[in-house]
Amino acid sequence: MNDGTHLVWNTHEQKKVFEGPIFDVLEMKRTSNDGRSGAFISLDAPKWVTVIPWYKNKDGIPYFKMVRQYRHGSEKVTIEFPAGTVDEGEDVMVAGKRELLEETGCIPHSQMVLLGSISPNPAFMNNRVWFYLVEGLECVNDQHLDENEQVDILEIPVEEVLREMGHGEYDNGIMMIAQGFFLRYAKDHGGLL
Amino acid sequence: MNDGTHLVWNTHEQKKVFEGPIFDVLEMKRTSNDGRSGAFISLDAPKWVTVIPWYKNKDGIPYFKMVRQYRHGSEKVTIEFPAGTVDEGEDVMVAGKRELLEETGCIPHSQMVLLGSISPNPAFMNNRVWFYLVEGLECVNDQHLDENEQVDILEIPVEEVLREMGHGEYDNGIMMIAQGFFLRYAKDHGGLL
Repeated sequence: MNDGTHLVWNTHEQKKVFEGPIFDVLEMKRTSNDGRSGAFISLDAPKWVTVIPWYKNKDGIPYFKMVRQYRHGSEKVTIEFPAGTVDEGEDVMVAGKRELLEETGCIPHSQMVLLGSISPNPAFMNNRVWFYLVEGLECVNDQHLDENEQVDILEIPVEEVLREMGHGEYDNGIMMIAQGFFLRYAKDHGGLL
Repeated sequence: MNDGTHLVWNTHEQKKVFEGPIFDVLEMKRTSNDGRSGAFISLDAPKWVTVIPWYKNKDGIPYFKMVRQYRHGSEKVTIEFPAGTVDEGEDVMVAGKRELLEETGCIPHSQMVLLGSISPNPAFMNNRVWFYLVEGLECVNDQHLDENEQVDILEIPVEEVLREMGHGEYDNGIMMIAQGFFLRYAKDHGGLL
């Protein structure tokens, strides 16, 4: 009773009901351990990765390199950490490094640190998102964007991002998760805040 | 240049390409300010609400009331704060109170506090999620679940939830966002941790 296995539903049918450019939609017929049946919907999406590019400016103040872009779901411009989709078969850390370079023109100064991963929305998504910290950057300021991407590159003090997250243009839940993993790491590793 | 309006795309066509029980999928044809065109996908989803039910046990230790359930996207059992969908025309706070009662059989002891709201995923979702804090609960321990819901009610020390969030069964990004809003509020209001 206490380990949650009594809650598991078993799949006995699955079909693709929508095929799209960034996800497909699956419908599953499932039965519970106490004999109930139902049809459930799930987004079949690729892995995602978010990179937190941290550095100190010439005065020793901690900064994040952020990106500003138009978001086609919320129809708003948001400020975010560099992030994107992991290609089929691609290593997640390699994908993070690639997204960082494409969106900001920067490469990490040192080894990227895996801060954690989580299901962005287990209710209806079957993928995970990984979070990496980059301490120190080398920037050539040459973006390599996809055809329909337009991205402003911003440099914002860490203190300002932590204060503004969840307000105004800082309106992306995935970035608030990133902040959560960053703050937990910063608590155990001095000098980041 | 610096306010982000140059990044906005304009919609000139929109159609529903999938209709489902918890969201529809829209396809929009859009044009950028610098003359590019593209087709973009968005989930048309209702508002969501998450409630953080906080109380002190008889020894004065801060606790959260949590729920454990099977999640049909990730196909895993997760531990979460009570949460759900806001009905069409329903007030968000009323919906939060309703979900709390349905999933845990508890009602708030005092006024619910709005901690914040955010776009769960502005890249392809058009909805928002709101987060409320409940300080103190009255529990009749009588769940009112939807047909296909099975929910274990758990009482977990705040300290344990904060430590475990993003690990093991604490695998729901929306709950890590909730934790972020809670921690920010707790910083400004003593006695919660």
